[in-house]
Amino acid sequence: MEEDLVAKPRSGRLFARVRKRLNDEQVEVLAGGGAVRIERIVSTGHASPPGFWYDQERPEFVIVLAGAAALRFAGERAPRRLGPGDWVDIPAHARHRVEWTDPATPTVWLAVHYTG
Amino acid sequence: MEEDLVAKPRSGRLFARVRKRLNDEQVEVLAGGGAVRIERIVSTGHASPPGFWYDQERPEFVIVLAGAAALRFAGERAPRRLGPGDWVDIPAHARHRVEWTDPATPTVWLAVHYTG
Repeated sequence: MEEDLVAKPRSGRLFARVRKRLNDEQVEVLAGGGAVRIERIVSTGHASPPGFWYDQERPEFVIVLAGAAALRFAGERAPRRLGPGDWVDIPAHARHRVEWTDPATPTVWLAVHYTG
Repeated sequence: MEEDLVAKPRSGRLFARVRKRLNDEQVEVLAGGGAVRIERIVSTGHASPPGFWYDQERPEFVIVLAGAAALRFAGERAPRRLGPGDWVDIPAHARHRVEWTDPATPTVWLAVHYTG
């Protein structure tokens, strides 16, 4: 195939322009197509609102790449603590909430929403 | 939905059990479904064989999370140097090769093969 008929590779830096303090959690879509959406999420002490649970139609793979977070799943006794490199593959309809993110340093996540 | 009817969240540590020296590049599938495959790849100085180019049917999002690599694309003058946090979204059929990975320290990649 001719090179000039192929889309150009897009690139970026996950740790660039990470703000230390955000009013709202920041979500940027990096890549994806119909069946997948890859996002960078930056949290600066954000958590899910009290009593709020995510219940998603599609699985989501998340990995913490900087900072720290605690992810709670319905039916589990304690939140799961996540630090850099820790990943969780969240099945569709696994109810969960972000219990805590580090207030002292930004937490950078990579999230992959996909069709299971 | 009843909690016990929902699949359990699986988790792991991307930086666990990273060997300093591997005969072959190590690829582990972490998660995925029909339309996506999420892998951890560990390279310890590995590169694509001379003259070899990947030409993939599906797009691939890659991010270097430790170590360093150089990714060359057909039609580009120079390889793209990647360090921790640097990502590239490789379109389907964008011919490319891994020119170099750091021989001194393991390079840990996250790769997401997806349907565009």
